[in-house]
Amino acid sequence: YHYRRRRASLRGSPGHHRLSIISNGSFPVSGGGGAADPAEEEKLQIREEFEANLADAGLEIERDKEVSGSDAVRPGRRAFLTAVVSAAATLRVPNPTQPYELKEVKGFSGKMNAMWRKLNQPFQPKVPQMLSQSRTKFLSHSFSRDKLHLYNIKQKDTFFDNATRSRIVKKHNTIQTFLNTGQTLMFTPCLPGITTLIANGVYDSAFPLHDVSFFFIILLHDEWARYGAFYKYQPIDLIRKYFGEKIGLYFAWLGVYTQLLIPASLVGIIVFFYGCATVDTNVPSLEMCDERQNFTMCPLCDGACDYWHLSTACSTARASHLFDNPATVFFAIFMSLWAAMFMEHWKRRQMSLTYSWDLSGLEDEEVMTFALSSQEHPRPKYESILLKKREKKKIKKIKKKKKNEPGQEKLTWRDRLPGYIINISSILFMFSLTFSAVFGVIIYRITTSALMAMSTDPETKSNVRVTVTATAVIINLVVILILDEIYGAVAVWLTELEIPKTETEFEERLILKAFLLKFMNAYAPIFYVAFFKGRFAGRPGDYVYIFNGFRMEECAPGGCLIELCIQLSIIMLGKQLIQNNIFEIGIPKLKKLYRTLKEKGAAPEESDDQLAKTPQQWDLDYDLEPFEGLTPEYMEMIIQFGFVSLFVASFPLAPLFALLNNVIEIRLDAKKFVTELRRPNAVRARDIGIWYNILSGMGKFSVIINAFVISFTSDFIPRLVYQYMYSETGTMYGFIDHTLSYFNVTNFKPGTAPISSQYDKEVTVCRYKDYREPPWSPLAYQFSKQYWAVLAARLAFIILFQNLVMLLSTLVDWVIPDVPKDISEQLKKEKTLLVDVFLREEKDKLQLIQSLFLKDKDGGEAGPRARCRAASFSQFTRQPSPGQTVKHTEV
Amino acid sequence: YHYRRRRASLRGSPGHHRLSIISNGSFPVSGGGGAADPAEEEKLQIREEFEANLADAGLEIERDKEVSGSDAVRPGRRAFLTAVVSAAATLRVPNPTQPYELKEVKGFSGKMNAMWRKLNQPFQPKVPQMLSQSRTKFLSHSFSRDKLHLYNIKQKDTFFDNATRSRIVKKHNTIQTFLNTGQTLMFTPCLPGITTLIANGVYDSAFPLHDVSFFFIILLHDEWARYGAFYKYQPIDLIRKYFGEKIGLYFAWLGVYTQLLIPASLVGIIVFFYGCATVDTNVPSLEMCDERQNFTMCPLCDGACDYWHLSTACSTARASHLFDNPATVFFAIFMSLWAAMFMEHWKRRQMSLTYSWDLSGLEDEEVMTFALSSQEHPRPKYESILLKKREKKKIKKIKKKKKNEPGQEKLTWRDRLPGYIINISSILFMFSLTFSAVFGVIIYRITTSALMAMSTDPETKSNVRVTVTATAVIINLVVILILDEIYGAVAVWLTELEIPKTETEFEERLILKAFLLKFMNAYAPIFYVAFFKGRFAGRPGDYVYIFNGFRMEECAPGGCLIELCIQLSIIMLGKQLIQNNIFEIGIPKLKKLYRTLKEKGAAPEESDDQLAKTPQQWDLDYDLEPFEGLTPEYMEMIIQFGFVSLFVASFPLAPLFALLNNVIEIRLDAKKFVTELRRPNAVRARDIGIWYNILSGMGKFSVIINAFVISFTSDFIPRLVYQYMYSETGTMYGFIDHTLSYFNVTNFKPGTAPISSQYDKEVTVCRYKDYREPPWSPLAYQFSKQYWAVLAARLAFIILFQNLVMLLSTLVDWVIPDVPKDISEQLKKEKTLLVDVFLREEKDKLQLIQSLFLKDKDGGEAGPRARCRAASFSQFTRQPSPGQTVKHTEV
Repeated sequence: YHYRRRRASLRGSPGHHRLSIISNGSFPVSGGGGAADPAEEEKLQIREEFEANLADAGLEIERDKEVSGSDAVRPGRRAFLTAVVSAAATLRVPNPTQPYELKEVKGFSGKMNAMWRKLNQPFQPKVPQMLSQSRTKFLSHSFSRDKLHLYNIKQKDTFFDNATRSRIVKKHNTIQTFLNTGQTLMFTPCLPGITTLIANGVYDSAFPLHDVSFFFIILLHDEWARYGAFYKYQPIDLIRKYFGEKIGLYFAWLGVYTQLLIPASLVGIIVFFYGCATVDTNVPSLEMCDERQNFTMCPLCDGACDYWHLSTACSTARASHLFDNPATVFFAIFMSLWAAMFMEHWKRRQMSLTYSWDLSGLEDEEVMTFALSSQEHPRPKYESILLKKREKKKIKKIKKKKKNEPGQEKLTWRDRLPGYIINISSILFMFSLTFSAVFGVIIYRITTSALMAMSTDPETKSNVRVTVTATAVIINLVVILILDEIYGAVAVWLTELEIPKTETEFEERLILKAFLLKFMNAYAPIFYVAFFKGRFAGRPGDYVYIFNGFRMEECAPGGCLIELCIQLSIIMLGKQLIQNNIFEIGIPKLKKLYRTLKEKGAAPEESDDQLAKTPQQWDLDYDLEPFEGLTPEYMEMIIQFGFVSLFVASFPLAPLFALLNNVIEIRLDAKKFVTELRRPNAVRARDIGIWYNILSGMGKFSVIINAFVISFTSDFIPRLVYQYMYSETGTMYGFIDHTLSYFNVTNFKPGTAPISSQYDKEVTVCRYKDYREPPWSPLAYQFSKQYWAVLAARLAFIILFQNLVMLLSTLVDWVIPDVPKDISEQLKKEKTLLVDVFLREEKDKLQLIQSLFLKDKDGGEAGPRARCRAASFSQFTRQPSPGQTVKHTEV
Repeated sequence: YHYRRRRASLRGSPGHHRLSIISNGSFPVSGGGGAADPAEEEKLQIREEFEANLADAGLEIERDKEVSGSDAVRPGRRAFLTAVVSAAATLRVPNPTQPYELKEVKGFSGKMNAMWRKLNQPFQPKVPQMLSQSRTKFLSHSFSRDKLHLYNIKQKDTFFDNATRSRIVKKHNTIQTFLNTGQTLMFTPCLPGITTLIANGVYDSAFPLHDVSFFFIILLHDEWARYGAFYKYQPIDLIRKYFGEKIGLYFAWLGVYTQLLIPASLVGIIVFFYGCATVDTNVPSLEMCDERQNFTMCPLCDGACDYWHLSTACSTARASHLFDNPATVFFAIFMSLWAAMFMEHWKRRQMSLTYSWDLSGLEDEEVMTFALSSQEHPRPKYESILLKKREKKKIKKIKKKKKNEPGQEKLTWRDRLPGYIINISSILFMFSLTFSAVFGVIIYRITTSALMAMSTDPETKSNVRVTVTATAVIINLVVILILDEIYGAVAVWLTELEIPKTETEFEERLILKAFLLKFMNAYAPIFYVAFFKGRFAGRPGDYVYIFNGFRMEECAPGGCLIELCIQLSIIMLGKQLIQNNIFEIGIPKLKKLYRTLKEKGAAPEESDDQLAKTPQQWDLDYDLEPFEGLTPEYMEMIIQFGFVSLFVASFPLAPLFALLNNVIEIRLDAKKFVTELRRPNAVRARDIGIWYNILSGMGKFSVIINAFVISFTSDFIPRLVYQYMYSETGTMYGFIDHTLSYFNVTNFKPGTAPISSQYDKEVTVCRYKDYREPPWSPLAYQFSKQYWAVLAARLAFIILFQNLVMLLSTLVDWVIPDVPKDISEQLKKEKTLLVDVFLREEKDKLQLIQSLFLKDKDGGEAGPRARCRAASFSQFTRQPSPGQTVKHTEV
């Protein structure tokens, strides 16, 4: 009853957590037919002991009475409700002793600020002022428990509150730790924690309950998890209050990313429209479409294919200009800088979140308990393996009669070696799987197009390229989607094999592995198209063949860039659409359905009075999907960031598609977190961790990739070289002629010449796209001087581009300070305020000591020991009150 | 007398500081003829007030009695001796309550460690155990004053000591701040600080005195500032104790740099010897020396010069092989990685120093006072300009009758604009000065060689190249040395014009400017030789001329690398030798001599009893040079680091020369600090600041520079291309022939052909070093296909090299953790220990509160107010003792 009363009083306070623990076995009180199994019996005992401990720790345990009262009808279910006093929300409310107003900026910039705020108003979520970040900021140093005394000089009334709160905080932390790890700091030591118990199958699961009575969730529903709110900022502070810092940071990051995608997609659209506008004045594509020029091209396949006119490829040439124009180069530079800017912006945003959420104080006492919390504690699996090893060693040691050294045990590389070997070999296997998938699609393309070209149906023949490309890309997409799921599971399995010690370590390794595999998977076909396709096809008369006579594929006449563009857009769009819609919405719903069905099947005898009863929160929440970490969410976004940054030179619309996807993604994720997942444990975090490194690495990698795409995949450099080195008029006229080499048809190897040709008699020389010496040169078919000049220009461009962009990125990095100016000013001000408070207190203390000394001298009887005591007393009471009383006695 | 006694008692304690303040004017007590000047009078008053304040602050003031007693005979001199209680040494001694032993590593690695320590023994400086880092480490968190209570649970005896010490620390900090800035924290506010007083000419200078009686200085003399100790590690802890953290960090950095130069110079020597060993088997140089091959080269100058045989340039070809061989490429990669390794090593070293010097706690209270100390306080100049501005504004405001807003004043960009404009224009002017100096030397070289070639003396003619190169390099060196001094002064002047607010800001801006100017100055001629020399010379028949008919200079027949190598080695060696020996040793001695002479001249009537008297410490120290910051020392080393990293591909012996220089430099600097400079103020610092950024920027820059040197300056790429693309046998035979183009002598422009030639009749075709089409080709004298192929290869190499090295550097960065393993383990252990202590205390407190509650209930009379008081009391006494007494009464 005592507990119940206490809880009632706490109900109203924001952020109080209820934790639900679902047991696996039957309920002990129920004298049913269960507990026949000795293992089950043991589990029962452990459960009882654990519950007793929880009660000892001052936790309120609330049983699902309906279930416990009845027989063990639902063996899979039992709920504890544990009211853990004071969660993050109360914990974070700063000490109100030293508030100060944020300075309003005056003058012109102040007006600009106000205007900006007004303009921004419709995009702000409607959150009551008290819950959102208020404009009155508190001295953040006050959270440091040891400095609490600083704030008690003036306000003795709030004194006990602080102490209580602080104690509550401590308890909360301890309980969290205790629950998670079994390491009780103050209480009985060395019990298995709830995670270990779950791992051992004693309990089914443990999760905090959604707080539907709590008005946060209503606000979150209305202002965040709704598609109608797509144009609004997210209520980040609210999210963080309800879900904790880690999830808050994820959504903040997603918000910054999405916001910065807006300028990127705008510029992308402009670049695209520039391409559209100039397509009719573009000389190379005009020349290609000009039927009067009439270039007779060499056949695209052996025997079956005929010579063809370049003007028939007019449409691809025009399409390719949309993505391959000088604006693309500018866009690639812009996007590289954009990536640098994005990183800087995020750093700043993180900094201001760290400041306003007071995470910078994590150094202090809180980090100590935090360090011992679930994130840092050895994982159950690690512990059990360690235990096994220890036992084995003991046996060995008994044999060898050596002394045992306790506590020094660690898993050495020898224990982990098998795991590592499996790891490396599996990853290599996965890599080869990816490559063979890509290779398989290539084979498919080559063979299909060869077979289709051989077909007699003219309809089939004319659609070869379109059909083959379309089907191949779709196959690629399906393979990527399937392998993605497989790789996700494999990464978890491999990381488990490595037996990482802590949860943090586990997460980091898993992320690295999963990223590596999924990145390879998503980008391997794109890399192939960008850098390898068509480069090993050989030349007429000396084609490269694979297997039994299939010629290596060439790029489309308009250049490889258009193919890259198609590949990229389909994979990007397809991946996003399918993964978002089917995997993220569909599969959870299916799973839930399956679980409900199974539940019903398992407990068909459940009477309708059970159903009629309003379901308890734990019942409702148990039906939800468990929260499985942010890794998939981040991964999806990072892979998308790759599409936006890595090959952006070939597809300027990528940022736009990413933006559209993300606007939906945010609300989708929000809905998922609010309504479809069990409420996750609130985890504190200062930053987004390893993801930042992956992002910044990707940003750097994108510079060199874009440089290569522009110089090797696009025709930008050959055009430049032609215009400034070879063109006699200084214009682009004659460029197409310049890029096509001559081939004497008599040099065809036997059997490779077209069998029947409509041009048969007239054709003596056909053209192909390459820089080679003409047949009449002494060095016929060798690379020409132009080839080397263009190559040199391409390479020079890469060096120039890479170093220029790196320099500019460094500049961006250097110009934009990591800490926003207002925050650094705030911090400085807080520091001075703190110094003031500190010094005032110091002064008081000095006076106190002096008065004590005076008294000592007056009294005379007190020895040095007493004086010492007095001084020490005054040193640590840090309150003038005892001093005042002393003075009083003097009077 | 009280002060005297107190001081005597403090004499013995290590690290007590005496500060000497030298007044400018005459002594006030002396009723001499002075003080006629009203300005002088005012200064006198300020001085008296300041001294009175010092005395108020509890500082001991000791006057130079001999001087003050006599008449104002030495108007320029008076010394205060101010005993500032407790310096860094006592301040840093950790709280000895929670010592713990560093764990001895056992097993194989432990043995290795012990062996390493034994091997290292002779290199360790002989420092008594108690002064050096002991193997017992204390909980570093204990320095945090607020956590002191944690350590008083068990040891009540040491209690008062802590309190006293802590108070002393406070006082010390305050006094330092007070002296430097006049901002008294507890005492009277807003007096001008000593720095301002010195700036205003009220005092002459203020510096802490060398402590000759103190045995640190003897140890420093013997174990550090002695050339004989060159092979030993530096006693860094001792240096830091005597000179403070900032200087300690400089020497630690210098030590790490010098130590890491050892492997670099070893590899450099090996590379050099590889060149020596292979010079006789190197095909290209053999071919060049082979007189049978007999390439007739085109003349080196117009008219006067004759055709010549390539075999006459045999010696330069052989010399050039020493530095231009495949091993150089390896060495360039190695040195880039070495630079990355060096940065990582320094980070680790800095981390362990931060740990063992307990600088990581700088966050805490100390940083607060530190933040207000001299480094962060507005500079006197800034303040005076601000004052002027404020007054101007006031006048304006009085005119406009507006209200005054105090405290909001700042210097805006408008006040600084003239400074910035002068800045930018001066820097541009300095740049153009440097470039014109380089250009001047080029002109000198061109004209002199042309004139000498025209001379009829065969002796002169044969030595043209040697004479011209040698004199030109020496002129370059002299110009660099002179401009270096000028630029140093200009940088200071320019930074003063910018009116930076704080000392830190001033230093940072000064460093950036000085670095930019000095870097340009030192490297401009080297960059010219590496990348521009000989590239704009044109070809026979179409030479490039500057001014009235002087042909642009070409590289030596052996390639430009050998010239770069000569240039680099002479500038590097010359700069180091001259700047080290003449500037660093000679000039201070001269200055000292000059000052002594002037002193003697000014006070000739000083009687011999003055001289006979043993001179006081302040007299001795006043004769020493004032300490002027570490900037020149760092600058010298950074420029040297540039020689070692930027062009190391051309001169593998650079690290060796740097090593030799640094071994001397360390001891030279040590001697300077110990015997030739006034003792600098101990300044705390956590890192080497902006120098780290400059170093890391230079490391990154060196990658691309080395890539360009290898691919464009050396002949590495042409050789590779020849061997794998053009050589029919796959060997290097025929390489020289391949690199030489043909020129038909009939194509010489009129007047440029040799006037008289010993080959006159036979020569129809001469050769020159370039890849151009032969005269019989239709595109005669245009760049040949080989040219473009080689260019492409060169550029490809740059891309490969740069990205490979960047990748490897990132790997090095990633593999070597920033925090050494033992330190991170230590930190973890400390954290757990702290948590333990904290929790124990928490538990005690809980018990105490419970007992208090019990007592309350027993007593019944105490209201809630009393309970609150009791709780608050227990909260902040944090000692079980009151609790125990309470219990006692219960019993």
